[in-house]
Amino acid sequence: MAEASIRIGILCCAEIARKVSRAITLAPNVTIHAIGSRSIEKAQKFAKENGFPPSAKTYGSYEAVLDDPEVDAVYMPLPTSLHVRWATLAAEKKKHLLLEKPVALNVKEFDRIIEACDSNGVQLMDATMWMHHPRTAKMKEFLSDSQRFGQLRSVNSVFTFGGDLGFLKNDIRVKPDLDALGALGDVGWYCIRSLLWAVDYELPKTVTALRGPVINEAGVVLACGSSLQWEDGKVATFHCSFLSNLTMDITAIGTKGTLHVHDFVIPFEEKSASFSTATNSTFDELVTGWATLPSEHVVTVDLPQEARMVREFARLVASIKGSNSKPEKWWPTISRKTQLVLDAVKASIEKGFEPVEIVS
Amino acid sequence: MAEASIRIGILCCAEIARKVSRAITLAPNVTIHAIGSRSIEKAQKFAKENGFPPSAKTYGSYEAVLDDPEVDAVYMPLPTSLHVRWATLAAEKKKHLLLEKPVALNVKEFDRIIEACDSNGVQLMDATMWMHHPRTAKMKEFLSDSQRFGQLRSVNSVFTFGGDLGFLKNDIRVKPDLDALGALGDVGWYCIRSLLWAVDYELPKTVTALRGPVINEAGVVLACGSSLQWEDGKVATFHCSFLSNLTMDITAIGTKGTLHVHDFVIPFEEKSASFSTATNSTFDELVTGWATLPSEHVVTVDLPQEARMVREFARLVASIKGSNSKPEKWWPTISRKTQLVLDAVKASIEKGFEPVEIVS
Repeated sequence: MAEASIRIGILCCAEIARKVSRAITLAPNVTIHAIGSRSIEKAQKFAKENGFPPSAKTYGSYEAVLDDPEVDAVYMPLPTSLHVRWATLAAEKKKHLLLEKPVALNVKEFDRIIEACDSNGVQLMDATMWMHHPRTAKMKEFLSDSQRFGQLRSVNSVFTFGGDLGFLKNDIRVKPDLDALGALGDVGWYCIRSLLWAVDYELPKTVTALRGPVINEAGVVLACGSSLQWEDGKVATFHCSFLSNLTMDITAIGTKGTLHVHDFVIPFEEKSASFSTATNSTFDELVTGWATLPSEHVVTVDLPQEARMVREFARLVASIKGSNSKPEKWWPTISRKTQLVLDAVKASIEKGFEPVEIVS
Repeated sequence: MAEASIRIGILCCAEIARKVSRAITLAPNVTIHAIGSRSIEKAQKFAKENGFPPSAKTYGSYEAVLDDPEVDAVYMPLPTSLHVRWATLAAEKKKHLLLEKPVALNVKEFDRIIEACDSNGVQLMDATMWMHHPRTAKMKEFLSDSQRFGQLRSVNSVFTFGGDLGFLKNDIRVKPDLDALGALGDVGWYCIRSLLWAVDYELPKTVTALRGPVINEAGVVLACGSSLQWEDGKVATFHCSFLSNLTMDITAIGTKGTLHVHDFVIPFEEKSASFSTATNSTFDELVTGWATLPSEHVVTVDLPQEARMVREFARLVASIKGSNSKPEKWWPTISRKTQLVLDAVKASIEKGFEPVEIVS
C-alpha cells in the first residue's frame, strides 16, 4: 500500500470499544496497535476476544499506550469524567485523538482538551458515528435543497432506550462520578447533534429545558427534553431517555418539505439505510387523502459508519503526519457546539426551566 | 330499511362541508335534508355542486334550517367565533349537533354549548374525523397493550401545513374575529386531541407553551408548540403550524414499545391506512444494527373516516329519538378536555411561557 497505516491505541476496554475495534479492522488505512486497561489481563482478554492482530500490544495502564512511540492516535471511550485528564495527556504526548461522546463534562473542560490538541498539533474528532454514514450526507442534501425542502422551520429529535434494572443501578451512565451527564450526555448528545446538523450548526439563541425530567437519587438525568429557538424563528425540540423503548427519530420540517428518519444513530441494518422525504405535500381536492405521497430513499453502505469514521479520522491523521497539513478544525468545532447546547439544557434544568441564552 | 334515516341540516357552505356532505351521502343511516347559508344562491350552488338529493332544501339563513321541524340534527362548520351563538340556538331548537373543531373560542363558551345540549337532551359531538378511523382503534389497542407497549412515557405530535399567501392573508383561520385561535385551534386541535387520546384522556398537570410561537399582526397564532406533563411523569410535546410543509405525526413511546404514524389526521389514502409499531427494540450484539425491526400494520377501510363519524353520530341520534336513550356524554367530555388544554397553551403563551396548571 502506498499509504502507511495509522496505528491506533485504544484506551480502555469499554463495550463500545468492541465495535470500534472491528471498525479499525475494517477500515483500510488504520491498524490496531495497542490496547491499554488498568488490568493487563483485561486488556489481553479483550484483544483475544476481539480478534486483534498478533502484533497488537496489550498494556496494563493507559499511560503505557500514550508512551508507546509507535502509537499515532488513540481512541478514548473512557468515562466522561476522565476525558479532560487523559485527553489532554494524550495530546501532550502528540497522540491524535478520537474521543467518545459526550466529549467532556462541560464546555470549559472541553476547551482544555481543544487547547491541548491545538498546541500539540493533533487532530481531535468525537466518535459520533452517524455523522459518517453516507445516508447522513444524502439527508443533508435534501435539507439544503431550497426546492425540495425550503427553509427549515422546526425539527424534533428523539433518542430513547430502555435501560434494564442492572443498567439503571450500575451503568457508568447513571453514576455522578463517571458519566455524570446521564441520558443527556449519552442519548441526548445525539439528539442535540442532530438538531445542530439540521440547522448547519448555527447555534440557537436560547435553550429551555422542558419540565418533567427524570433524575435519579444521585442527581443524574435519566430522561429529559428541551426546546431550542433560533434568532430567525426556527424552533426545535428533543427528548432523550434511558426509560423507554429504543427509538431514534429526526423529523425536520421546512417551508416546502419534510424529512423523517427512524434509525438515525444506528441504522436498522448495516448494509443499507433509508429515510423518507416529502415535498410540497398537499391533500387531494376533497381532502380525503394526500395528492402526493412521501418517498423512501435507500442508501447502500460499502463500509459501516463506524469504519468510515475511523477511516476519515485516520485520513486526517495521515495527512498531518505525511504532508504537515493542519488538524481539521471542523470536527472539534461541532463537538464544542454540541457540548455548549448540552450545557445549556443542564443549566436550564438547574435554573428551574428558565431559558438559557447561548453565548458562543 | 328498518332504521329511519336521520335528517341532517348543514349550517353554512364552508369548504369542509363538501367533504362532510359526501360523508352523509355515503353513511347508511343519514340523509342531507337541508343546507342554510346567508345567501340562498350560495346554498343552491353548493347543493348542486355537491350532488345533494333533489329532496334537499336550501335556505337563505341559518335560522331557517334550525326552524325546519324535519331537521333532526345539524352539522355546523361555522367560524369558531359563531359557535356559541348558533350551537346554543340549535340545541334550544332540539337539533342534535355535529360541531366543527375547535368547538369554541374557550372552555367557558363551550360550557354554554354543553349546558344547552344537556338541558335540551341533544347529542353533541365534535367533527374530529380521525377518531372514527378503524386504524385509530387499532393503534389504541397497541398503546393499551402492557406487553407490546408497556406504560406510555412520552408522546410527540405534529400537524403543520403550508398556507399560501392568500391563506395567510384572507383565510378565516388567521382572522381574530373569526377563527381567533388560528393554527392552535385548527391544526393544534388535532395535536392536542392526539396527546389526550394517547393517555386515555387523562388531563395533564401542567401545560407550558414553547418559546418562539409565530403570531400575525392581528394577534392570531400561525405556529406554536407546547410541552405537557402529567402527575405520574408522562410528558408530551406538540408543534402546529400554518407555515411549513404538510406533516402529521404521532410518536408515542412506552416502556416497552413505540408507535409511529405519519398521516394520523388525514390518511395518505382513503381505502387503507398504516402505522408502525416496535416492541422491546434492542440492538444486535455488537450494536451495528437492530435485533428486531419495527413492523407495519395496514388497516383497510370500508367507509371513509368522515362517513364513519357521521354514521356514529346518526346512530346516537337515532337511539335518542327511537328509544329515548340519553345523549352520549363521552364525546362532549373529550371535546371539553381538548379545549381545556388548548386554552392552557394560549394562556401560557400570553403569560410569557409560564406553566399553566390544568384545573378540570
